[in-house]
Amino acid sequence: MRLRNKPWAKEMLAQYPQYVIPNPEEYKGKWSEVFGNTNPLHIEVGTGKGQFLVGMAKQNPHINYIGIELYESVIVSALERLIKEELPNLKLLNVNANELEKYFTKNDVARVYLNFSDPWPKTRHEKRRLTYKTFLRSYENILVDGGEIHFKTDNQGLFEYSLMSFSEYGLLLKFLSLDLHKSNFEGNVMTEYEEKFSQRGQRIYRCEVKYLNEK
Amino acid sequence: MRLRNKPWAKEMLAQYPQYVIPNPEEYKGKWSEVFGNTNPLHIEVGTGKGQFLVGMAKQNPHINYIGIELYESVIVSALERLIKEELPNLKLLNVNANELEKYFTKNDVARVYLNFSDPWPKTRHEKRRLTYKTFLRSYENILVDGGEIHFKTDNQGLFEYSLMSFSEYGLLLKFLSLDLHKSNFEGNVMTEYEEKFSQRGQRIYRCEVKYLNEK
Ligand SMILES: C[S@@+](CC[C@H](N)C(=O)[O-])C[C@H]1O[C@@H](n2cnc3c(N)ncnc32)[C@H](O)[C@@H]1O
Ligand SMILES: C[S@@+](CC[C@H](N)C(=O)[O-])C[C@H]1O[C@@H](n2cnc3c(N)ncnc32)[C@H](O)[C@@H]1O
Repeated sequence: MRLRNKPWAKEMLAQYPQYVIPNPEEYKGKWSEVFGNTNPLHIEVGTGKGQFLVGMAKQNPHINYIGIELYESVIVSALERLIKEELPNLKLLNVNANELEKYFTKNDVARVYLNFSDPWPKTRHEKRRLTYKTFLRSYENILVDGGEIHFKTDNQGLFEYSLMSFSEYGLLLKFLSLDLHKSNFEGNVMTEYEEKFSQRGQRIYRCEVKYLNEK
Repeated sequence: MRLRNKPWAKEMLAQYPQYVIPNPEEYKGKWSEVFGNTNPLHIEVGTGKGQFLVGMAKQNPHINYIGIELYESVIVSALERLIKEELPNLKLLNVNANELEKYFTKNDVARVYLNFSDPWPKTRHEKRRLTYKTFLRSYENILVDGGEIHFKTDNQGLFEYSLMSFSEYGLLLKFLSLDLHKSNFEGNVMTEYEEKFSQRGQRIYRCEVKYLNEK
C-alpha cells in the first residue's frame, strides 16, 4: 500500500463510528450487537482499501464482515467506499493485527481472509508474516472450531512458506489453486492487489485451510 | 513414456538378474542381502528409463536405490544404462506399484521418490494417482517411522491434488518449491520428463512430506 500523508484521515475515521468501530474491545464476544444479527462473522486481516470486502459483503448479505487495517491513510479509502455503498454487513477496524485477541474471543469469527499479505521475504522477519505460527495461534483463539483461513497471494515465496507453516501447525489443506485465474473457482472477488498483479500476467495462488477439532 | 513394442525386452531383463531382481518377494525384510550392506534404501515408483536414479546413485554411493517400473519396454532402457554404469547401489524391479507390500515390509524403505507420475486428471481415475490415499498407506506400510516422500512434477493439477491428499492423510509438508529450477534447491538430479518439460519452459513443482510418528 502506498502511504500518502493524509493528515485529515484520523479525523474522518472518527466521524463515521457506524463504519469504523471506535472502541472495538467493548464488543469482544458480542459482535452480533454491532450488526444487529447473529450471522457468521468473517474478517479480513490487512484489508487495505477495502475492495475485496465491499465485493464480498454485496455478494453475501447473510455474512457479516470486518476489515482490519493498521494504516489510517489506507483504511480511509475503504471508509469512502463504505459511505457510498451503505452496506449494513461490513465494518472496519483501524487496529493492529498483532492484537486481534483484544477485540475478538473464541468463537467470535468463522473465517479469516488473508489477501496479498506483506511478504516479509527476509528470514529474520519471519515472525511478521501473517501466516507465522503466532498469528495462526491468534486466529485459532478467535475462530469457531473448524474455522478456516482463506489465503490469496501473488507472492510465490510467501505462499510456499505459508503452506509449510499451515502444515506444521496441523491445519488441513482443503482447497488449493496454483493459478487461480485459470482455475474453475467460482465467485472470486478481486482485491486491489490482485487486479494489479494479474494485469501484469502474474499468477495468483489461493488456498483454504481448516483448524481441526481433533488437535 | 512412449511404449515401443520391444519383444526382446522380457528376455533381456531376465538375462541380468543382478540388476533386475527376478524374485523380489524373497527379499522382503532383507534387502540388505541384495546390496551387501545396511545402507538406507530409497525407492522410486514409476522410474521410467532410470535417468534420475542413475544420477542419484552416483551422487550418493552410501544410499541404496531401487527403481520400480511396470513396463518391460521402458525399464529395459534403465537396464541398459545400468549395464554401462555398473552401479552397485542401484537395482530395478519390473513390478506394479500396486503391490509394493508384496516386496517390502515396514522399515525396509527410508524414502519414496515420485517423479512426474501419471496425472490421471479425470476424477473417476483418482484412485490410480500415486498420491491417492491407498498408495500413501502402502508407502507408510513399507517406510521407516518418519519416512519421507519426495515428489516432483510439472503437472499443476496433480500437484494441487497431491498436496491436499498429503494434508488429508496427516503428512507434514517439510519442503515446497513452486518453481524448482528458479529456486536455490541444490543437487537436483533431472529426470527424463523433467528435462523435456523444463526445456518447453514449464515450471517444475517439488515437495517433501514426512510421515509423523504421532499418527
Ligand atoms: C499488500 S497490502 C494488501 C491489501 C489488500 N488486502 C489487497 O489484497 O489489495 C497489505 C495490507 O495489510 C496491512 N497490514 C500489514 N500488517 C498489518 C497489521 N499488523 N495489522 C493490520 N494491517 C496490516 C497493510 O497496511 C496493507 O494495507
Ligand atoms: C510419466 S512417466 C515418468 C518417468 C520418470 N519418473 C521421469 O520422471 O521421467 C511415469 C512412469 O511410471 C510408470 N508407472 C505408472 N504406473 C505404474 C505402476 N502402477 N507401477 C509401476 N510403474 C508405473 C509408467 O510406466 C511410466 O514409466
